[in-house]
Amino acid sequence: MNTPRASLKHKVYRFLDLAEPYDLASKCFDFFLLGLIFLNLIAVALETVDSLFEQYWIWFRGFEIFSVVVFTIEYLLRVWSCTIKQAYRHPFWGRLRFIFTPLALIDLLAILPFYLPLLSPQFRVGRALRLLRLFRVLKLNRYTDSLKILGRVLRLKREELILSLFVLSILLAIASSLIYFAEHQAQPEAFSSIPEAMWWGTITLTTVGYGDVYPVTLLGRILGGSLAILGIGLFALPAGILASGFSEELQARKAKKRRNQTQVCPYCGKVINND
Amino acid sequence: MNTPRASLKHKVYRFLDLAEPYDLASKCFDFFLLGLIFLNLIAVALETVDSLFEQYWIWFRGFEIFSVVVFTIEYLLRVWSCTIKQAYRHPFWGRLRFIFTPLALIDLLAILPFYLPLLSPQFRVGRALRLLRLFRVLKLNRYTDSLKILGRVLRLKREELILSLFVLSILLAIASSLIYFAEHQAQPEAFSSIPEAMWWGTITLTTVGYGDVYPVTLLGRILGGSLAILGIGLFALPAGILASGFSEELQARKAKKRRNQTQVCPYCGKVINND
Amino acid sequence: MNTPRASLKHKVYRFLDLAEPYDLASKCFDFFLLGLIFLNLIAVALETVDSLFEQYWIWFRGFEIFSVVVFTIEYLLRVWSCTIKQAYRHPFWGRLRFIFTPLALIDLLAILPFYLPLLSPQFRVGRALRLLRLFRVLKLNRYTDSLKILGRVLRLKREELILSLFVLSILLAIASSLIYFAEHQAQPEAFSSIPEAMWWGTITLTTVGYGDVYPVTLLGRILGGSLAILGIGLFALPAGILASGFSEELQARKAKKRRNQTQVCPYCGKVINND
Amino acid sequence: MNTPRASLKHKVYRFLDLAEPYDLASKCFDFFLLGLIFLNLIAVALETVDSLFEQYWIWFRGFEIFSVVVFTIEYLLRVWSCTIKQAYRHPFWGRLRFIFTPLALIDLLAILPFYLPLLSPQFRVGRALRLLRLFRVLKLNRYTDSLKILGRVLRLKREELILSLFVLSILLAIASSLIYFAEHQAQPEAFSSIPEAMWWGTITLTTVGYGDVYPVTLLGRILGGSLAILGIGLFALPAGILASGFSEELQARKAKKRRNQTQVCPYCGKVINND
Repeated sequence: MNTPRASLKHKVYRFLDLAEPYDLASKCFDFFLLGLIFLNLIAVALETVDSLFEQYWIWFRGFEIFSVVVFTIEYLLRVWSCTIKQAYRHPFWGRLRFIFTPLALIDLLAILPFYLPLLSPQFRVGRALRLLRLFRVLKLNRYTDSLKILGRVLRLKREELILSLFVLSILLAIASSLIYFAEHQAQPEAFSSIPEAMWWGTITLTTVGYGDVYPVTLLGRILGGSLAILGIGLFALPAGILASGFSEELQARKAKKRRNQTQVCPYCGKVINND
Repeated sequence: MNTPRASLKHKVYRFLDLAEPYDLASKCFDFFLLGLIFLNLIAVALETVDSLFEQYWIWFRGFEIFSVVVFTIEYLLRVWSCTIKQAYRHPFWGRLRFIFTPLALIDLLAILPFYLPLLSPQFRVGRALRLLRLFRVLKLNRYTDSLKILGRVLRLKREELILSLFVLSILLAIASSLIYFAEHQAQPEAFSSIPEAMWWGTITLTTVGYGDVYPVTLLGRILGGSLAILGIGLFALPAGILASGFSEELQARKAKKRRNQTQVCPYCGKVINND
Repeated sequence: MNTPRASLKHKVYRFLDLAEPYDLASKCFDFFLLGLIFLNLIAVALETVDSLFEQYWIWFRGFEIFSVVVFTIEYLLRVWSCTIKQAYRHPFWGRLRFIFTPLALIDLLAILPFYLPLLSPQFRVGRALRLLRLFRVLKLNRYTDSLKILGRVLRLKREELILSLFVLSILLAIASSLIYFAEHQAQPEAFSSIPEAMWWGTITLTTVGYGDVYPVTLLGRILGGSLAILGIGLFALPAGILASGFSEELQARKAKKRRNQTQVCPYCGKVINND
Repeated sequence: MNTPRASLKHKVYRFLDLAEPYDLASKCFDFFLLGLIFLNLIAVALETVDSLFEQYWIWFRGFEIFSVVVFTIEYLLRVWSCTIKQAYRHPFWGRLRFIFTPLALIDLLAILPFYLPLLSPQFRVGRALRLLRLFRVLKLNRYTDSLKILGRVLRLKREELILSLFVLSILLAIASSLIYFAEHQAQPEAFSSIPEAMWWGTITLTTVGYGDVYPVTLLGRILGGSLAILGIGLFALPAGILASGFSEELQARKAKKRRNQTQVCPYCGKVINND
């Protein structure tokens, strides 16, 4: 186990996986990857601006290749070094199990859109692949807690969320049906069917109110106004549950941070800074 | 009482009414009815999409007949077996009293729209009957607690809701009158009368803001802006009361579920799972 | 003091002013006036619907005369009987002081719009007088607690309301100035001046969003979006303060009602029901 | 130190800097400056109304000169008298350090826009200079606590604000990318690129909903509706954090005011009224 190769693998594993407070190089690498992910998000957005893409397409392409090379090396090193951990110790089956962990799948998804068109010409559908590059944002999971917090909130408030979404969809179905029967004859275009009327229901009860569809008959307006007054509270429930869960998590994190600045690493037993 | 018929009636009653944890068949039947109600809601919505209805009308009609047959059998079995319960013991008067309980009336309403046109040709008004089919959603009452929760919230917060709706309607009346006197001459179409201006008031103070009517004069804009700043809080009150009541109920339910997982059935005295 | 006239005055005073639980006639009269005020509100609104007014103007006029006669008799009886109370004991100066109490002024305002045109032809401005009839809603003050609650909330939260309206107006001034400098050249019509841009600011930051004015330049959109994300919280403050004050009052009222169902009348020393 | 000049400087310093409760003249001067700042804000706004400016430009110009003269004298007196304070005791270096304190820089910014065009003709850009005059609002800092409260809230809630803005921008990026891929082909104008789609995202998720851009395809509407239902809670987070911080500060201020009406001046040791 103490061969130079094992020692190197150990170093690589630590370098990639956990930034210890005194390990400056590992921390820099984390920040570098974090920045690269953000630049990728920005590049995906800016590429869609035609005037920019036409002028700088060579830079966009170059940045894409550079990103994929970095992410590929990172992925391969992770797969190679994962055998350090007890759970993935076996050279083949351990690595296979590691590849199917959520975080490793996200890493694979982040580079796959680039390699697919090289494998077969039938994957050369530019737009759909560009969409897949958005999955790179999930790589943030490893570097920031924001998405973890979101995930924890969703798990914690699961029951309330599902029940409120259930009530909300029944409310939406009833509201849309009522408004459809009230408005269909006056506006056969805008309220052509109940699913069409659900668009009105969603946009009204979330109080967005674009103004592309709205009731014009007396009955429709009375129904629409009453539904708005009573319904917006129920439509704000899922958002409110998410928001309160999020702010609870933020406060819990703050309290925990204050209480407990140092922790023991579950892998190596060393005391690490837990920020 | 122990004749085979009484025993069968007892089985049917239990099968329909209360899913005991070990009674898999009864649970499956509950899920089947639950799914059927949801599919009915979806079918009512999709039928209004002309292109879908023209192509698949035979399927829609078939599904409607199938649903009504199932709901009719369920209804008849419920009426037949209700005499098991002490309160409806009498073969005739007991059943009559059962028929006029809210849940039984809902079950009747769910099937009536189908049978009415068969009774008399004057009920062949397609659209109104389709609307009545929406009442089938109330059958959910028996299978989920969502509507019960809504009902309990409305009962619990009755006083606050009525008082806030009262203040809100006075506010709406005053706001609409003021804006009518400010805007009537500049926009005789959009603000043709105070009831017409109430549509503006409702849509503005709920912050929906379609943009179909809005003040254009200086006075109207100052009034409208001030009313919006001060009024949206009061218009959010009924929705807020409903939402807070709803989330209180959700938490109370969660706490109760944790505290008390098993309960005694009020009918048969057996310990049942209360989820 | 015990002459028949004094006794009658005493009865009238009690009849008008305080509904004692066992005094059915006084309670009925209160409900009658309450209903009359509401019908007046509805009549003011419906009169502005031209088609209704043309057809039923004789009924509207009749109802107006009937209302004014009732309110006038009520007002005269109140002024006559007010000397019962210790504070307005003097036949002339007491009554004069009574006339200038807020509640009596409201009663006067409610009937004045009818008598003014009879005094001088220069007051025959129909529309403005109809607006004055809205003041009749303030008479509700005597019969329901809703407006009293609103008044108490405004008094209780005075300081927070003023401070938040102050911050809000500075925010509105800055936001409108910034958007004016960003959008003036692109949209000289919609953003013709900073006061004009304040209309945009109010409608955006209250999240009403009619869509009659919105930024179209890149800078204007970035400014508008950022202001919306950060500003809607501050714009919701006055409304939130009002709403929370209102619901605090509602709960306090509920608690007080439960705690203390009976109270001693401050005028006559009798125990009265305080609902 | 007790020369007449030092004594005058002391008086000026006290006059400008801290309104002691018994010093009526100093209090009046504070109110005068406060009013002048507000009139400046109003003047900047009203000047942009062309019809007003053309008619009254001489008054606007006169008021501007008057304001600048007052603010300049105030600034010069502050710089001259600052040496009273221990920290800025040195006649030259002390004053230089004083000039670079935030409050003194704000005072300088308030008068600079007037003097710049006199120094060099290249600064005669009217509109940009008028914008700079808005900085005068920051002078309010010295006279009211509103901006200080805002600053303290921002400092106190820094962590939550940054984290929620971070989550919000990732959500905005993902929502805008998804809607771009759904709507780009149907509406190449409105959803021409992802940054363009972010305008839609911001206006929808803050529930402003102008109605200038909205999804029209089925996929876009389903995406847009779902994002609205789930996203508005997260978009309300920064505003909610600001609003709750603001109202916490308001209550803390109220409690402190009640607890502790008198305080010792940190400069002169005297007991002063701390309102």
